[in-house]
Amino acid sequence: MSNTTQAAGSKLGAMMDAIGVAAKRAAGVLAHASSANKNQALARAAAGLRRDADSILAANSVDVKAAAEREVSAALLDRLRLDADRVEAMAQALEAIVDLPDPVGRVMQEWSRPNGLHIQRVAVPLGVIGIIYESRPNVTADAGALCLKSGNAVILRGGSESHHSSTAIHAVLTAALAESDLPVTAIQMIPTTDRAAVGYLLGAMSDYVDVVVPRGGKSLIARVQRDARVPVIGHLEGLCHVYVDAGADRSMACEIVLNAKMRRTGICGAAETLLVDRKVRDTHLPLLVSALLQAGCELRGDADAQAADARVLPATEEDWYREYLDAVISVRTVEGVAGALEHIAAYGSGHTDAIVTDDPVAAERFLKEVDSAIVLHNASTQFADGGEFGMGAEIGISTGRIHARGPVGVEQLTSYKYCVRGSGQVRPT
Amino acid sequence: MSNTTQAAGSKLGAMMDAIGVAAKRAAGVLAHASSANKNQALARAAAGLRRDADSILAANSVDVKAAAEREVSAALLDRLRLDADRVEAMAQALEAIVDLPDPVGRVMQEWSRPNGLHIQRVAVPLGVIGIIYESRPNVTADAGALCLKSGNAVILRGGSESHHSSTAIHAVLTAALAESDLPVTAIQMIPTTDRAAVGYLLGAMSDYVDVVVPRGGKSLIARVQRDARVPVIGHLEGLCHVYVDAGADRSMACEIVLNAKMRRTGICGAAETLLVDRKVRDTHLPLLVSALLQAGCELRGDADAQAADARVLPATEEDWYREYLDAVISVRTVEGVAGALEHIAAYGSGHTDAIVTDDPVAAERFLKEVDSAIVLHNASTQFADGGEFGMGAEIGISTGRIHARGPVGVEQLTSYKYCVRGSGQVRPT
Repeated sequence: MSNTTQAAGSKLGAMMDAIGVAAKRAAGVLAHASSANKNQALARAAAGLRRDADSILAANSVDVKAAAEREVSAALLDRLRLDADRVEAMAQALEAIVDLPDPVGRVMQEWSRPNGLHIQRVAVPLGVIGIIYESRPNVTADAGALCLKSGNAVILRGGSESHHSSTAIHAVLTAALAESDLPVTAIQMIPTTDRAAVGYLLGAMSDYVDVVVPRGGKSLIARVQRDARVPVIGHLEGLCHVYVDAGADRSMACEIVLNAKMRRTGICGAAETLLVDRKVRDTHLPLLVSALLQAGCELRGDADAQAADARVLPATEEDWYREYLDAVISVRTVEGVAGALEHIAAYGSGHTDAIVTDDPVAAERFLKEVDSAIVLHNASTQFADGGEFGMGAEIGISTGRIHARGPVGVEQLTSYKYCVRGSGQVRPT
Repeated sequence: MSNTTQAAGSKLGAMMDAIGVAAKRAAGVLAHASSANKNQALARAAAGLRRDADSILAANSVDVKAAAEREVSAALLDRLRLDADRVEAMAQALEAIVDLPDPVGRVMQEWSRPNGLHIQRVAVPLGVIGIIYESRPNVTADAGALCLKSGNAVILRGGSESHHSSTAIHAVLTAALAESDLPVTAIQMIPTTDRAAVGYLLGAMSDYVDVVVPRGGKSLIARVQRDARVPVIGHLEGLCHVYVDAGADRSMACEIVLNAKMRRTGICGAAETLLVDRKVRDTHLPLLVSALLQAGCELRGDADAQAADARVLPATEEDWYREYLDAVISVRTVEGVAGALEHIAAYGSGHTDAIVTDDPVAAERFLKEVDSAIVLHNASTQFADGGEFGMGAEIGISTGRIHARGPVGVEQLTSYKYCVRGSGQVRPT
């Protein structure tokens, strides 16, 4: 609070306000830009990324070098590092966004009233979106493009580690906007790594910013949710469960569990806890445990899981709360669907959970009663992804319940308004 | 902040936390309650209001007497006062909510993916809703019922002026819940008029409260938006405009303007500013001005409006920002649709605005470019109402862009989740 107040009178505050004013003005133009015009800018940005790949990679090497000197983790270095393939993938991602239908102007619903009024609910942009993210430089291109497609102006604030990379990518985006006669301030990047800028964006810019989307780890999200005076669409964490019911086909269960945990361990849809119906601890559990061990996964289990294989480490209470994001999984047996529901309600993060079973009653109960953004029957939790849902690129997966839940794609970046057409109707007294 | 911190360690904080825990538990039950069960409780509550009308009126007279002694405004006294007709209207409002379709469990969208996954987007309750309102005791019944219908637990915090009335109404609601085997904590009322309770609800209960809906005047909403650490669905104010275009039929324009301003002057959909195309200042403007004057409306106008009738007072810059909520209107001429758009963008509150014209090009431009929750063509702004939209009762009209915009009815009090049904699908690497 006092930081914000200080910043308000400062140079930083003045700069941030100027960014806000410019964003709001750009949003007014963008809201009525044609699909063709927005797509043209996106296509030019894709071409620009390819054209300027060398300078982007040069900027990236500055970031990577600085990070390496600070001895950051290998995982962070990998997220930060760009190469020719990754730049090409960024360009292709923009082209995929071109191919999406324009979410703005959609008539979401329409009906007539007995008095002859015709009412349409029409999708409109949210306005100005603030995006706060960490080290992945590709988010600069993705998030900028998703906001542009959905007619929103965006204020980007990337991690300081990727500042040079993001600046180079951002230059490509603004050039594409200028070439397409769209306001260059439609996609702005906060040009400082000063952390106070984030506080100011969250706390003092509610006149300009309609919603903030944080993308990153737990501490970033927690900070945003604590400090934000603007609405937030964010996800906390993906503490995803796979529950293998007594009615599960054993080989299907193995395949799904392995995929849910091991396909990619670092994504939010990766399974972190395996729940197995106690009724099948002698038939299914040993198979699941050995399949995971064989795939190189560390297991932390309850007594039943440890009994199934001596290599299973003991799980502590804390393990049921852990989003490992690594080749580690916690395992326990539960008393049927009811036990699974209870465990998930107590420890889950409301992200994505799956049941494996051939019993339709168990499946429907699980789908209905698990209170998560995504609940799956006989499918891997790693399908928790806007692309896999057919929504195109996503800006993240929301575990909040307001506005958007689950994958946040271009449609979720819109609001709506009501257009009412009459012929002179007045309201009776 | 320091208030909250203090309260956290206090008796008040412990009481509020207990309310939060109970609400969250009730929400878990309510989410899966059948429509019949919820409707039964609502019908019993309606019957209970009629049965206990005498004790409700007795409690209300205590509130009214205390308010009268404090010499509050006549308008506040009127909002506060109940009589037999108003209690009956409250009961009927609950019965109307019984008749609404259950918004929970609706399949909002469904589709299949090429890999065979079937995806449904299904409406679920938001969870726990906090409602902060002012002196109208009927909000206790309305808001409680709308939340119950939509499967949400609610924590009600009414104005201190109506505390006895609200307590009596609340007792009816909880009795109806108990008789219907639903948790009585599904509808809780904060049992103290201590203002610190509002601060605690907004600032320290994000673990329990999913969204807060403020209903009341500017200062209440401003306080909620300043202090809330939970998402807010609220409306700021209804600074509604009627723009009479050169292409408007004169008598239709008069009828709509009179209705928009004078049908009820105290509601948020009442017009506050009349904009008239300068091209018709000699034909339409005098007629509009004299019709308003004749209906008992005070006019504050620009030079053109004053020229039309000597009784028009001069408008100051401040008048264009004023939500009069009274028989007062500001009037000015503008340069066609473009001038109207400019005025509304500068001074409007994004609530409801109308154009009167027979020119379809002007109408469509206005509908498209006015950035308000509700935009009307040839109809009165007083149609800004959930009931008039066919949505049933509403908890308010949102001018926010996140989650809900425009009337907030039972459907807007839901979130959604994705139910995904597969047959063993795993995600390819």
